[in-house]
Amino acid sequence: MSGRGDVAPPPDVPVTYRLDLQYDGGGFHGWSKQPGLSTVEGVLEDALRVVTGERRRLTVAGRTDAGVHARRQVAGVLLVGPAAPERLAHSLNAVTPPALSIRRLSVALPGFDARRDATERVYRYFLDTRPSASPFLHRFVWSVAHDLDVEAMQAAAAMVRGRHDFSAFTPTETEHVFFHRTVIQCRWEMLDGLLALTISADAFLRHMVRSLVGTMVEVGRGRRAPEEMAHLLEGAPRAAAGLTAPAHGLFLWDILYPDAGVPALHTG
Amino acid sequence: MSGRGDVAPPPDVPVTYRLDLQYDGGGFHGWSKQPGLSTVEGVLEDALRVVTGERRRLTVAGRTDAGVHARRQVAGVLLVGPAAPERLAHSLNAVTPPALSIRRLSVALPGFDARRDATERVYRYFLDTRPSASPFLHRFVWSVAHDLDVEAMQAAAAMVRGRHDFSAFTPTETEHVFFHRTVIQCRWEMLDGLLALTISADAFLRHMVRSLVGTMVEVGRGRRAPEEMAHLLEGAPRAAAGLTAPAHGLFLWDILYPDAGVPALHTG
Repeated sequence: MSGRGDVAPPPDVPVTYRLDLQYDGGGFHGWSKQPGLSTVEGVLEDALRVVTGERRRLTVAGRTDAGVHARRQVAGVLLVGPAAPERLAHSLNAVTPPALSIRRLSVALPGFDARRDATERVYRYFLDTRPSASPFLHRFVWSVAHDLDVEAMQAAAAMVRGRHDFSAFTPTETEHVFFHRTVIQCRWEMLDGLLALTISADAFLRHMVRSLVGTMVEVGRGRRAPEEMAHLLEGAPRAAAGLTAPAHGLFLWDILYPDAGVPALHTG
Repeated sequence: MSGRGDVAPPPDVPVTYRLDLQYDGGGFHGWSKQPGLSTVEGVLEDALRVVTGERRRLTVAGRTDAGVHARRQVAGVLLVGPAAPERLAHSLNAVTPPALSIRRLSVALPGFDARRDATERVYRYFLDTRPSASPFLHRFVWSVAHDLDVEAMQAAAAMVRGRHDFSAFTPTETEHVFFHRTVIQCRWEMLDGLLALTISADAFLRHMVRSLVGTMVEVGRGRRAPEEMAHLLEGAPRAAAGLTAPAHGLFLWDILYPDAGVPALHTG
């Protein structure tokens, strides 16, 4: 369960906070801390240390790669000193770069783990297929100036739904041990003139959305039959699937928790 | 008059083209060519030379400063060799960076001058006054985390309308000779949660919109009375007015020509 809302906790009791974040991934080398590089995790932990004086590790729902954006990312952190959520959010926003925004900060239930407690992650990938692309969107969409067969791409997307072995859609050198994932939503649609894939799953392998998108664009260009997906989803090797689409078209779109944003103790 | 549409011209006749452009000003050091810097004019003239083999000067409706964006900018160019407008636009887009887009290219009437023929320039400036700003907008809005008295700003904006001496709203070191301009629209409104100023005039002085915005934000913060505008608009010195708002909140929004986009010879 993710939260009990905006109620300020009593002082001197360790409290778990939930942070709802947005970021422009173009401003960071991904989520995970890396020495010498500006990452979301690094910037946030530094900001927490500056604002609260405490050096704490964050839990996070989705460790996004370099260049991937987040419309909603959820992190959790345990702080020992007292802090009023709204004031803490304001202070963190004041010391973090404008490419990162803490949109909401709330007191979570004890032991809240942003990664373990999340039951569904939603990603969205944007393609611009128009010959003359908007210069205001180019940092957020993959420009593919080809006619795409959206019906064939939709057929491929339908096959992705369900439980499969996604080995073909993650780098061969991997930290993953199990390659089965359950895809819940997977669907192309036109949104404001852009072709967007919305895909959700219990969890994702590294590069999984981007290599699925790259493969489905090859289907859209007529270079693959949609039916090939069936074979690819049975544990085929990485080389059998398509290219990895660029990071800057991808957004971590939403994170679902069992209590669906209804703070459990808010009424208590 | 600005255009006669998409009709391909006969070969070997010098033809004036009208280019309707958009750009993300964050990607350029402004419109005007500068040695060693990437500017919109420089990039476009290079692209025209690569695509057509001709080295030509552009006329332009508004020479935007470094960091200022264009939702619509209009340029004109005379080319001697034949070119089909749609193919020329496609080729130019293929060799220009994604921060610049040629949205339309059409054959103009002979002698079309994008600057001289324009009768009204429209600019829009975006402020974000919310405590937690969107990380996806920060490159396009000025984040002013203060409560602003929008009614007072609206009163100031109303006084800006009409013909005035705008000396107080342009740098003291200037190439301008005359400082009177006629402001047609000048109005604040809420647009998608942002506070936006739409201002149009026959022509603008350098930094005029940004120093008007900076001054009106001081009015909104209660540091100036709206009535001060009357004095400032009578040729007061630069130091009497407010600070220059940052470039990245400003968009050249539209350019009006007498024929209002109705290609004169399209029906002929």
